[in-house]
Amino acid sequence: MSKLVSSIREAVQLSGLKDGMTVSFHHHLRNGDYVLNMVMEQIADLGIKDLTVNASSLFDTHQPLADHIRSHVVTGIQTDYMAAGLGREISHGLLEKPVQFRTHGGRPSDIANGNTPIDVAFIAAPSADPMGNCTGKVGKSACGSLGYAIPDAMYAKKVIVITDNLVPYPLPGWSIPEIYVDYVVSVDAIGDPKGIVSGTTRITRDPVGLVMASYAAKVIEHSGLLKDGFSFQTGAGGASLAAASFLKDIMLAKGVQGSFGLGGITGYMVDMLRAGCFQSLLDVQCFDLKAVESLRDDPRHQEISALHYASPAQRSAVVDSLDVVILGATEIDADFNVNVHTDSNGSIMGGSGGHSDTAAGAKLSMIIAPMFRARLPIVTDHVTCVSTPGKDIDVLVTQGGIAVNPKQAELRQRLADAGLPVIDIQELKEKTERITGTPKPLPKGGRVVAEVISRDGGVLDQIYAKAE
Amino acid sequence: MSKLVSSIREAVQLSGLKDGMTVSFHHHLRNGDYVLNMVMEQIADLGIKDLTVNASSLFDTHQPLADHIRSHVVTGIQTDYMAAGLGREISHGLLEKPVQFRTHGGRPSDIANGNTPIDVAFIAAPSADPMGNCTGKVGKSACGSLGYAIPDAMYAKKVIVITDNLVPYPLPGWSIPEIYVDYVVSVDAIGDPKGIVSGTTRITRDPVGLVMASYAAKVIEHSGLLKDGFSFQTGAGGASLAAASFLKDIMLAKGVQGSFGLGGITGYMVDMLRAGCFQSLLDVQCFDLKAVESLRDDPRHQEISALHYASPAQRSAVVDSLDVVILGATEIDADFNVNVHTDSNGSIMGGSGGHSDTAAGAKLSMIIAPMFRARLPIVTDHVTCVSTPGKDIDVLVTQGGIAVNPKQAELRQRLADAGLPVIDIQELKEKTERITGTPKPLPKGGRVVAEVISRDGGVLDQIYAKAE
Repeated sequence: MSKLVSSIREAVQLSGLKDGMTVSFHHHLRNGDYVLNMVMEQIADLGIKDLTVNASSLFDTHQPLADHIRSHVVTGIQTDYMAAGLGREISHGLLEKPVQFRTHGGRPSDIANGNTPIDVAFIAAPSADPMGNCTGKVGKSACGSLGYAIPDAMYAKKVIVITDNLVPYPLPGWSIPEIYVDYVVSVDAIGDPKGIVSGTTRITRDPVGLVMASYAAKVIEHSGLLKDGFSFQTGAGGASLAAASFLKDIMLAKGVQGSFGLGGITGYMVDMLRAGCFQSLLDVQCFDLKAVESLRDDPRHQEISALHYASPAQRSAVVDSLDVVILGATEIDADFNVNVHTDSNGSIMGGSGGHSDTAAGAKLSMIIAPMFRARLPIVTDHVTCVSTPGKDIDVLVTQGGIAVNPKQAELRQRLADAGLPVIDIQELKEKTERITGTPKPLPKGGRVVAEVISRDGGVLDQIYAKAE
Repeated sequence: MSKLVSSIREAVQLSGLKDGMTVSFHHHLRNGDYVLNMVMEQIADLGIKDLTVNASSLFDTHQPLADHIRSHVVTGIQTDYMAAGLGREISHGLLEKPVQFRTHGGRPSDIANGNTPIDVAFIAAPSADPMGNCTGKVGKSACGSLGYAIPDAMYAKKVIVITDNLVPYPLPGWSIPEIYVDYVVSVDAIGDPKGIVSGTTRITRDPVGLVMASYAAKVIEHSGLLKDGFSFQTGAGGASLAAASFLKDIMLAKGVQGSFGLGGITGYMVDMLRAGCFQSLLDVQCFDLKAVESLRDDPRHQEISALHYASPAQRSAVVDSLDVVILGATEIDADFNVNVHTDSNGSIMGGSGGHSDTAAGAKLSMIIAPMFRARLPIVTDHVTCVSTPGKDIDVLVTQGGIAVNPKQAELRQRLADAGLPVIDIQELKEKTERITGTPKPLPKGGRVVAEVISRDGGVLDQIYAKAE
């Protein structure tokens, strides 16, 4: 018995994929992924139409999806993140049905509870054996964690593993066991290593970014949370990484022994683990080669599924135990609602990912963002799109001051007592607009091109078509 | 947020356990387990009645269950194995409803597909954190793999983890993630280490056992399966271990590089891994301390869930890729049907465990058994109970000759060509009876006290009450 089939085309045919069904993909190969495009090309060639694509994220490399939408091969998209290229086309009305945006926790939760059933899941696997045990930890296309793919494998009606490193049975250290896998396809390459992981993620050298990072580290230092058992997540942006670096120095100086680092993991978090800042790293996605190597070699660095990371429908997820998260924003309003879905012109260029999941779970969720970008202020009266509700955001750190959500009066006092430049968010808005001028409000209206579905299921906001 | 509750009693109350429901237990603590008895005592004390106990196995230490049956706290039992003490009482009609015997693969399959839903699963965990991430690899009651408990945790409506080694969050290297766990209880001791794992499992010194073991190893050597990629499972009985030891010597002498060793894992299998006989061990249960240590320290030694081990309802399980398994029997008949549920007097003293699962999956399934025990011949006209159907058994090895299932004509020829003492099973029966005499056939009939449910769901046989 073997599940090996000769081609993606044969696997698609064997899966019984038909018009109107849903296919799923994961984004661990990031902008280096070949699998989504290879699969969709075969599906299109087979004449299958009217599919919904459920992808944990869509990157610029997935631009060919636009053609599959134009030819009605794809008529529905569910995703947690969409890069600017495809986002622009969606914002201009490419797809008739609104895109459904979910979070990295809401997506697996809706897959598990049957709200968004998957007919055929395609798993891009850097190593697999002929029965489908597979992992991202080794292979020429190694990407580390396969955390986002695990729920797809667990719940899809059919599961196809596509690998460019077929190894003898049994592959040790699988992320996904054979019990979920129907077919295995061996191909020349599942992705471009240069696009899968960057060699190293890099700390910002921008002075504004460094100021924000320094403030962010000091906010954590004085938050009352930086003590033994401390847990932390940060993104891979330059200022967030700089904040992690400053935080590391503070933790080492104070001898704080944290418990875990969470999230998309970078080499900087690996450095913090090795320096003793954390007991473990919990990794749903690796951002760079150092993270991949650490996940493979260091037993303190553990892969977690998207369900374990952030699902609100499980008995608990790691985000529920998180102390501090550093997040980004394209806009934030006076109620601390955050937009990470669109740019300030309303064009889709992102998505929640784990933003609202970690914001909801963490004791302290902090936004780092510059006061303005391209003369557009970060603080607005109303965000173009509510990605994460303001009730879950505690602090906004900018180079022009630190705004604390009024519900966090004690934290505001702590930061003020520490001499940090605390500022009212309305005041920060006015201070910014004295530099940038007051932008014209964006006309809202027109057709709905996307819905933002909150992590626990309701529609949080809608995104409207842009005029040509 | 924490899931810690103060006592087993409180956890039971919080779980909503009510009359008529099903509770589940796993048997990784084997005859050292305290948890089943502690839990049932609280349940009885709370006045809850008419429960079904679904336990992956029941040992002599679980004898107090008999009292809970007498007091109608427990009115149903589902298990894969029952030791002789409780078995004798069941055989004498203790329980009104027939016991449902399943296999180690059929049990998780029926849990997963909803045939045997579990209301509250109790997980005895040698280490756990306050959110329920837990493992058997470390702690004073370390038992190694928690493979049989994983499906219970995944599918039960409520899951209670009971540990005697509560560690700070997050426990690294969990076997069961917090996403499935509702409550965590810390107790003084979940078991008696002496009963959980033996210090070492031991090879037989009995001359008859050594003859059988030597034949068994030679059967494998000449089966055509002993080549690179070879995979193997054996039990923890003395003759089986001796066979493994002889097999190891043959593999090393011939330079055969096997792929995996499977099953309940003993130190002898660990020795084979270290000697290079296998690339990996796949471990659903540890039988001794050496196996526990190896699972903890050697990444080639991997824990597998019961679903991954043997479930016939998954897309595949490891047993489907198995070459050779060595199994035991209390009786075998001319059609190669095997009894491992009762003794030759019809009293329950065992169960299938992984017997029929591995027999069905393996390319070569071999029974090792002496020609007779206490003057009762191993080969009978009809087994008292069909535990594993003869179609799945290929060879019977005794000290008096090797009987090959007629459907395996080629194998029979190979063994004969190799000079092994091949004998027709009917002839073996007659040869044995010349020593022992012909036993009186056991009167069959009376009330059905247990049903043997085959791994894919049908009733394979029934076990009848014994007269007083």
